[in-house]
Amino acid sequence: MQQLLDEIAEIVGPENLLTGEAVRQRSVDWFTSAPCEAAAIVRPGNTEQLSRVMALCHAARQPVVTHGGLTGVVHGAVAAPSELAISLERMSAIEAIDPVGGTLTVQAGAPLQRVQEAAAEIGMQFPLDLGARGSCTIGGNIATNAGGIRVIRYGMMRQQVLGLGLEAVLADGRVLSSMNHMLKNNAGFDLKQLFIGSEGTLGIVTRAVLRLQPALASEQCALVAVPSFAALTSLLNLAPLRIGLSAFEALWNSHYRLMTEESGAHTPPLATDSPFYAILESQGMDAEHDAEQFQALLEEAFEAELITDAVLASSEAQRQAIWAIREDIEVLVRTLNPMFSFDVSLPIPAMEAYVEALEQRLAEAWPGVARLVTFGHLGDGNLHLMITVRDGGAESRRAVEQLVYAPLAEIGGSISAEHGIGLEKRDYLSLSRSETEIATMRLLKQALDPHGLLNPGKVLG
Amino acid sequence: MQQLLDEIAEIVGPENLLTGEAVRQRSVDWFTSAPCEAAAIVRPGNTEQLSRVMALCHAARQPVVTHGGLTGVVHGAVAAPSELAISLERMSAIEAIDPVGGTLTVQAGAPLQRVQEAAAEIGMQFPLDLGARGSCTIGGNIATNAGGIRVIRYGMMRQQVLGLGLEAVLADGRVLSSMNHMLKNNAGFDLKQLFIGSEGTLGIVTRAVLRLQPALASEQCALVAVPSFAALTSLLNLAPLRIGLSAFEALWNSHYRLMTEESGAHTPPLATDSPFYAILESQGMDAEHDAEQFQALLEEAFEAELITDAVLASSEAQRQAIWAIREDIEVLVRTLNPMFSFDVSLPIPAMEAYVEALEQRLAEAWPGVARLVTFGHLGDGNLHLMITVRDGGAESRRAVEQLVYAPLAEIGGSISAEHGIGLEKRDYLSLSRSETEIATMRLLKQALDPHGLLNPGKVLG
Repeated sequence: MQQLLDEIAEIVGPENLLTGEAVRQRSVDWFTSAPCEAAAIVRPGNTEQLSRVMALCHAARQPVVTHGGLTGVVHGAVAAPSELAISLERMSAIEAIDPVGGTLTVQAGAPLQRVQEAAAEIGMQFPLDLGARGSCTIGGNIATNAGGIRVIRYGMMRQQVLGLGLEAVLADGRVLSSMNHMLKNNAGFDLKQLFIGSEGTLGIVTRAVLRLQPALASEQCALVAVPSFAALTSLLNLAPLRIGLSAFEALWNSHYRLMTEESGAHTPPLATDSPFYAILESQGMDAEHDAEQFQALLEEAFEAELITDAVLASSEAQRQAIWAIREDIEVLVRTLNPMFSFDVSLPIPAMEAYVEALEQRLAEAWPGVARLVTFGHLGDGNLHLMITVRDGGAESRRAVEQLVYAPLAEIGGSISAEHGIGLEKRDYLSLSRSETEIATMRLLKQALDPHGLLNPGKVLG
Repeated sequence: MQQLLDEIAEIVGPENLLTGEAVRQRSVDWFTSAPCEAAAIVRPGNTEQLSRVMALCHAARQPVVTHGGLTGVVHGAVAAPSELAISLERMSAIEAIDPVGGTLTVQAGAPLQRVQEAAAEIGMQFPLDLGARGSCTIGGNIATNAGGIRVIRYGMMRQQVLGLGLEAVLADGRVLSSMNHMLKNNAGFDLKQLFIGSEGTLGIVTRAVLRLQPALASEQCALVAVPSFAALTSLLNLAPLRIGLSAFEALWNSHYRLMTEESGAHTPPLATDSPFYAILESQGMDAEHDAEQFQALLEEAFEAELITDAVLASSEAQRQAIWAIREDIEVLVRTLNPMFSFDVSLPIPAMEAYVEALEQRLAEAWPGVARLVTFGHLGDGNLHLMITVRDGGAESRRAVEQLVYAPLAEIGGSISAEHGIGLEKRDYLSLSRSETEIATMRLLKQALDPHGLLNPGKVLG
């Protein structure tokens, strides 16, 4: 490998080939802080350098793992000592921003938050948003088809990339570039789709043309207490018709109570005895009118007994305090230590029974010990389940995984809503995808990466 | 082939295997009414029948061409006498509609308009919309990644299909089914993307899960006269911030004057001497408030001299009269006979010069004869160019194509915005896509359809 590393150093410069301690200092797992074990970390400065690096790796049959912001939670960035990590941290420029066409051209290593800020500077918005916004990169958002809190209104990352608006380096180093800037472009297959959500297994995303949305200056946010799951879904159905709903986050009592009263981390804005809570957020263009609509909706919900209490954020600080209850994952990591984190999706009508059955099975298997904390993006069918059985061993993990994943196949749910498959869920893929589907995925992998050099073992194994 | 046809007749029933005159009676080209020349038309009744038919065709190496509503305009449905046509006309059921999750499950042969109506019946909307709505099918919309008039707000057909929400029959007859019903599902590659926009060359779409949107009861529509192209783009930038813009159609004077004064087909709601016109449409949830906003926008546009005249639709009949000017393609076909129709996209700032240069080149090549009529979805970067040189021969067609397509490569435009490639644009694909892109498309075609049985010769040739 040393000869290959020498050749790579010549391309990227020796200061951009990290080895030894500089590699180990990086963590590839947000929850466990496991160190990076790659033979080296390569930091190309542009697409052309990466193309040459990959051509060398291809010739040497050297496997690589692409690194973005390393905020993933399914072990998708794990690299073995025999593998090289390719970090796109130096390719982080916002190359162009077009207010007329409403597009932003960006390199893959740019953090999400910088893209959001650049859009805001010209009076527009980039609507994808998630807790890791400061660290996660656009390339990682693309590779995992990131979701987050505004999917209900704007869709996932796939919807934010313009048709044919992506550049990627293929396994053999060739550059596949479709930097289209028009909303409509149907000139042949939209190859960018191959790279969105395939977690670095089919190519390395280097640049993208993103679609911006009009900025919506007026924002309304409320936390509400909801007396039943049926009321929660009725509220969800009521909301979009009246307000420009941009987020609808459901918190089970298990989550809300832990984040406030139990941990003491956040002051509860509402009493902690309601079975469910929801954070509603709307965005609009007319503050006065939007506020009226939003309040009218809450009043109607009260009258229909869909909510029993509500607090409306009347300042940015209050808004942030409400969202902090939802986004402060560190309290969960600390309190539920050792914590198993899950991200599943399932039809909304099946959610309540699924969570109740899971809680019961956990209690039966680990009586007096197991805890389940549930919250999620209700409108997207997406639940996050945080579970502890007070034992972080592989055997316990497997046993919990079985309880979480096995029922999903039957109810048409998915083992991954927005986190991807990585290594962590690979062995469960057949619960959510058919034999023909998995065979077709393998066919694509074989066609695009015949030597298995790109993020080996992830997704398909 | 007779033995194969006999076996197919056993699967679908003899009444669903059309031959002879019944085949020739169908036209595969909307503009020319060219008859279908396929050896037979097969009409499977469900996915399982189609799967068995394709398994037989695969074993016999029998090429097939899939037929939806036959409203395409790039010869994508042309079938040779040695080929079979597969019509999905019997697979047209709306299988399920879920108001809570906001999804609609439909078979590929259902006409677009029926899906729109089914969504409206439960107080929601299916936002994809185009002139051929009554005839075109959901399967055809998917196979061509259809666009239409609401892309600026809702995106193209690709955005209307739920992630992993598609079923297709592969070249060998296997059924690839991902009928996911959740907004979020990242369990492995989203294989449905392969079949969207690949024009039946990689698989036959049989079913889909579509995403519905909240219905927006309030609709505003206006036709405005615009004094310059610069004013047109300024108006476009002004509009989305104030109103829930759902369509922004630009009409060059060449189009507006022909559709009204010259042909006498439509009464001109505004004088015909303005260089540009635009149809603005917005959708909202509060009729009174929306109307105020819409009028305020028009007033501001007047004051900023972005528009010189306007007519606001005050009834559904007036709205339809405005839209008829835009959608009445038959007047164009009749007046510009023989007409060459083009569908291109290009960056908005490049449009004005492109159209002027094209007009000049046409006038030089066919002095006193050539005519260019221009209109399109401005916000999408999409122009439709209707051209006549009063000669419909292949040589004239080629010469005009050169003038239309050649400049696009340089300005980053596309030879197909929303119509696809089919046979018609196949030889120009390299103007819009790189060698590596085309090689990768071929790689996919080879992987998924190694014997070249699916819509042979289309897109890639």
